[in-house]
Amino acid sequence: MTAANVTRLGVIGAGRIGKLHAENIALRLPEAEVAAIADVDLAAAQAAAARLRISRAVADYRHLLDDPALEAVVICSSTDTHAAIACEAAAAGKHIFCEKPIDLSLERIDQVLAAVGQAGVHFQVGFNRRFDPNFAQVRRMVAEGKIGAPHLLRITSRDPAPPPLAYVRVSGGIFLDMTIHDFDMARFLMGSDVTEVYAAGSVLVDPEIGAAGDLDTVVVTLRFANGALGVIDNSRQAVYGYDQRVEVFGAGGMVAVANNTPDAHVYSNAEGVHSAKPLYFFLERYTESYINEMRAFLAAVRAGTTPPVTGRDGRQAVVVGLAARRSYQAGRPVKLSEIQA
Amino acid sequence: MTAANVTRLGVIGAGRIGKLHAENIALRLPEAEVAAIADVDLAAAQAAAARLRISRAVADYRHLLDDPALEAVVICSSTDTHAAIACEAAAAGKHIFCEKPIDLSLERIDQVLAAVGQAGVHFQVGFNRRFDPNFAQVRRMVAEGKIGAPHLLRITSRDPAPPPLAYVRVSGGIFLDMTIHDFDMARFLMGSDVTEVYAAGSVLVDPEIGAAGDLDTVVVTLRFANGALGVIDNSRQAVYGYDQRVEVFGAGGMVAVANNTPDAHVYSNAEGVHSAKPLYFFLERYTESYINEMRAFLAAVRAGTTPPVTGRDGRQAVVVGLAARRSYQAGRPVKLSEIQA
Amino acid sequence: MTAANVTRLGVIGAGRIGKLHAENIALRLPEAEVAAIADVDLAAAQAAAARLRISRAVADYRHLLDDPALEAVVICSSTDTHAAIACEAAAAGKHIFCEKPIDLSLERIDQVLAAVGQAGVHFQVGFNRRFDPNFAQVRRMVAEGKIGAPHLLRITSRDPAPPPLAYVRVSGGIFLDMTIHDFDMARFLMGSDVTEVYAAGSVLVDPEIGAAGDLDTVVVTLRFANGALGVIDNSRQAVYGYDQRVEVFGAGGMVAVANNTPDAHVYSNAEGVHSAKPLYFFLERYTESYINEMRAFLAAVRAGTTPPVTGRDGRQAVVVGLAARRSYQAGRPVKLSEIQA
Amino acid sequence: MTAANVTRLGVIGAGRIGKLHAENIALRLPEAEVAAIADVDLAAAQAAAARLRISRAVADYRHLLDDPALEAVVICSSTDTHAAIACEAAAAGKHIFCEKPIDLSLERIDQVLAAVGQAGVHFQVGFNRRFDPNFAQVRRMVAEGKIGAPHLLRITSRDPAPPPLAYVRVSGGIFLDMTIHDFDMARFLMGSDVTEVYAAGSVLVDPEIGAAGDLDTVVVTLRFANGALGVIDNSRQAVYGYDQRVEVFGAGGMVAVANNTPDAHVYSNAEGVHSAKPLYFFLERYTESYINEMRAFLAAVRAGTTPPVTGRDGRQAVVVGLAARRSYQAGRPVKLSEIQA
Repeated sequence: MTAANVTRLGVIGAGRIGKLHAENIALRLPEAEVAAIADVDLAAAQAAAARLRISRAVADYRHLLDDPALEAVVICSSTDTHAAIACEAAAAGKHIFCEKPIDLSLERIDQVLAAVGQAGVHFQVGFNRRFDPNFAQVRRMVAEGKIGAPHLLRITSRDPAPPPLAYVRVSGGIFLDMTIHDFDMARFLMGSDVTEVYAAGSVLVDPEIGAAGDLDTVVVTLRFANGALGVIDNSRQAVYGYDQRVEVFGAGGMVAVANNTPDAHVYSNAEGVHSAKPLYFFLERYTESYINEMRAFLAAVRAGTTPPVTGRDGRQAVVVGLAARRSYQAGRPVKLSEIQA
Repeated sequence: MTAANVTRLGVIGAGRIGKLHAENIALRLPEAEVAAIADVDLAAAQAAAARLRISRAVADYRHLLDDPALEAVVICSSTDTHAAIACEAAAAGKHIFCEKPIDLSLERIDQVLAAVGQAGVHFQVGFNRRFDPNFAQVRRMVAEGKIGAPHLLRITSRDPAPPPLAYVRVSGGIFLDMTIHDFDMARFLMGSDVTEVYAAGSVLVDPEIGAAGDLDTVVVTLRFANGALGVIDNSRQAVYGYDQRVEVFGAGGMVAVANNTPDAHVYSNAEGVHSAKPLYFFLERYTESYINEMRAFLAAVRAGTTPPVTGRDGRQAVVVGLAARRSYQAGRPVKLSEIQA
Repeated sequence: MTAANVTRLGVIGAGRIGKLHAENIALRLPEAEVAAIADVDLAAAQAAAARLRISRAVADYRHLLDDPALEAVVICSSTDTHAAIACEAAAAGKHIFCEKPIDLSLERIDQVLAAVGQAGVHFQVGFNRRFDPNFAQVRRMVAEGKIGAPHLLRITSRDPAPPPLAYVRVSGGIFLDMTIHDFDMARFLMGSDVTEVYAAGSVLVDPEIGAAGDLDTVVVTLRFANGALGVIDNSRQAVYGYDQRVEVFGAGGMVAVANNTPDAHVYSNAEGVHSAKPLYFFLERYTESYINEMRAFLAAVRAGTTPPVTGRDGRQAVVVGLAARRSYQAGRPVKLSEIQA
Repeated sequence: MTAANVTRLGVIGAGRIGKLHAENIALRLPEAEVAAIADVDLAAAQAAAARLRISRAVADYRHLLDDPALEAVVICSSTDTHAAIACEAAAAGKHIFCEKPIDLSLERIDQVLAAVGQAGVHFQVGFNRRFDPNFAQVRRMVAEGKIGAPHLLRITSRDPAPPPLAYVRVSGGIFLDMTIHDFDMARFLMGSDVTEVYAAGSVLVDPEIGAAGDLDTVVVTLRFANGALGVIDNSRQAVYGYDQRVEVFGAGGMVAVANNTPDAHVYSNAEGVHSAKPLYFFLERYTESYINEMRAFLAAVRAGTTPPVTGRDGRQAVVVGLAARRSYQAGRPVKLSEIQA
């Protein structure tokens, strides 16, 4: 790949996810190059730059927006800054890969979508799970009609351990920090929009989570535009590790995927038959999906096609999350039209 | 086993389930004997008697209640007759195994429970699935604390084909004819009562089912007295066969069971890797559970202990079913206290 | 089933396997009746008769052969008596179900086959594993051509614990007391005769087995008449239970079966994912196969067709066993023609 | 990673496996750098260099040996050149990663081992499968004593399609071109040397393979120094894809691994339950193992420790292969001492 063929990107944010994307681009995606990395903590940006041989590290992301050599930016800063940076980046004519959620406010999301639309730049939201080989295969089979019309969706999504309470207090709550991934997965797998949500929840893992105003165990029922039903169950703590399973059932059959494990050994002894726990958490489980989503973004940018996770996708997941939160608070099912109005 | 040790039973009803119980007792449970069988269709009773070498076949079940040699009756007549026969049998001092549901009316159920209580006879309701080796093993592990405090329950229960429309019209609806088994399973597995229900439903399999006033695809969220949450999904038609799976997740782990298959072959060819579908329907899948439940009833009768599925268990499943039906109709969660009042 | 339709059998031998067959016939096969049971230990015969409501118990099996009401006998006496009893039973015109092995001497086996042939009675050898639903399904798929021409066979067959040393000393050795089942399975699954055997063996489980002149761990390579190859591995002790797996690989695919377990639970906790061990031993694992083989024998007797496991099948398994023993002793492959000559 | 910390390697051979190693080093192993690549087909070397941004491409590997900046070479040239190049590279003081087999002649292998020993350079043989996460986990568990003393080893290793006949004619035969991987795996998993081999073989896949003097279907029995037994089955054509399974059974249990698949979907429809075939062939299945083996080589070079696959390992696999070939030809078991003498 000659230098002329390489897409130059700037990464904004050198935290966990920013470093992950920077490393994937630098080491695994020869079609692109991280030309610069920005972080309000300049030392963090510099450390990542040194490790990944990125030539430029800055504190202020605006330097990246001003750099005519950059075609696109990857926004990995803190959630509350996504919208503003995305609007500026769009105005600067940069294509945008934006981590999820775009924002927790629909108003601000709409500002971003408007800015992106006016600027005519590509915009992709970081719902990486769509690019997991297992879930992508499920979607492919559903889309191909292998199960006929979808009737029921089941998603189990359980974290190995709760996040820090400090995070819980500002995250917007479980429906917006955790279930939001499943809401996007639900729309993706079913190929249909959610129209109504009913959310039940409990505090069973840790009373401190309840004291912080949040839930740790939820069951969410979804109704889709095509009449199908779905259900998501979440727990903030599965002692056996990250539990990520989906199943789509339809008129002609069912397709499901189980958890990924670090290896496939089966050990039999006098006590029973034993195998490996699921991969520990999202960095291990979704390794490949992060590479795939960035590859897809780059391909869309280079081909001038619509990225596979659109701004509307990013918005809809938040709408479902807001509906779920309201449903739990009101103790009744909530139509998405109540939220979007 | 000498004749003196054998429990003499009368079977009331020689339809599908009556014949099943009669055959299990006659051929597989040497500790008991079917001394008589009754059916309003005398020919049906006689045919069953001939095949199973039962010495007496009658049209009127009252002959069985009057027979002092019979210690117990197995009520397998049509649902609308269960309550009346059970009351009479209790008055006659017979122990009672009663097919589910006892009745769809809580008032009549309470009459039965009162009659049984006054007569001091043993009373067991035919929730056979509790005696399936797989589900029994899940319950055992939950009861032993293997998963710690239960947090989440998932039940998938899908029939291979819808019942006849004539049945759908009189069955009380999917929540009372199909999900009722899952409601009992939920209480059994969790060891806790349901306190609130939210039911969502659709007609996706066959519009005729909708025209008959029923649903064919439902998702039911349960809240338990211990704070745990559960979810049941049902379909009246799974093209791959009878889908019967459960999973209980708790603070210390998870236990789940998959479907039973006729054999365990795995076939690999150029198209993929293939294995057997689940056993077709309840007669194939739950064969062993029917024998086990009757053995447990006989053991309780002989030992003078409380049968493992009580009248209250039979009543509670109906209460949950009525709550689910009301929830669907009202479009909101329904507390069980609204139904029981 | 009227009495006139019932096949009357006599069971010879009231040891473990004799009682098993008697119970299966008495309780699970309404098309037949155990009319009498014989055992040199009369008390054992009487105990079995009382428990199973068999009307006649005798010490001398000749009373059964003299009884014109009996159509067939089930020979479950000690192995060294099989041949003599079978010859007498044939002479008496009784159809014969004979436990394996017919004998360890080919000369005596040939006498039995001659006697049976002259008398024109049905003769079935008790290779029950052919009737296991899993193995029967593998055979069915091979016979249907699902895997094309068979190329490779793998059989793993490991006992949960070694037999008593007293048994080891007189059994004829592992190839004739244990692998013989696998030799029959190999012929059955491949639908082809074995032509050459190479047997390797070790004493790894218990040096006492070696001191008794036997092996406890063996690997046997088979060559079939159709050019295919097979391999059997045996151990006298698998701490995780009875390990019984087969796999047939061919030009068009592969079919395999794994072990049967008492239940299908999957338990996940902080240590891993756990499931049940295989069913403990042959009585648990092959329960159904014993019923099925007797049903097949009865069906053949009643229909006048050739039983599904013939005298030649019984002979060939012994021939392969003798070849394996010689191969191990000589340290070279042995052709079956060397044994049969 | 600063330039000073990077190990500079030369890759000799720009064929399929040379390009694979070059790409792994260039894109996935930041601790190393491909400083030069050589191939007798200079255009091939240049194409690889351009694609992977390797600064130097030459036709004659001796330029690499003469380059003082290179610390190590990766020998991926044709098998018949391995020994000579390895001797020269050792003399030049380069550490050596050598693709398998070192050579098919024990004499030449011994020359290489002597040269390497005299030069004091690190030498690793490319038995990549040891670095597959599944097989490595099996070995780890065996080494940790999880199964107690090993008694039985089973390896199934079947290719999806035969190699070209031109290759078959010069490869040394199936035992040296295909089973050799399994011979190394056997020694690796058991942690014990093979002492005796018995090989049976057939031509069942393609008569042309037989006409070329080779076999396509083999079963090899191994005896290990520790008394354990093992069996390998190979086919040159499994229509369902690359079949790579191992199982180690011992006094305390068993550990096994099944095949890897591209995804974990399970699809149920009216015909059955279906899942993905194994990954197609070694490039797909062993992707990770190639990276891991090179990382281990680099780590050994940098730490000055013995590489994890030694020259003796490379030699022993060939010895077992030669013994297997002789066993097949002679129709009898062959002791390794017959070959090594």
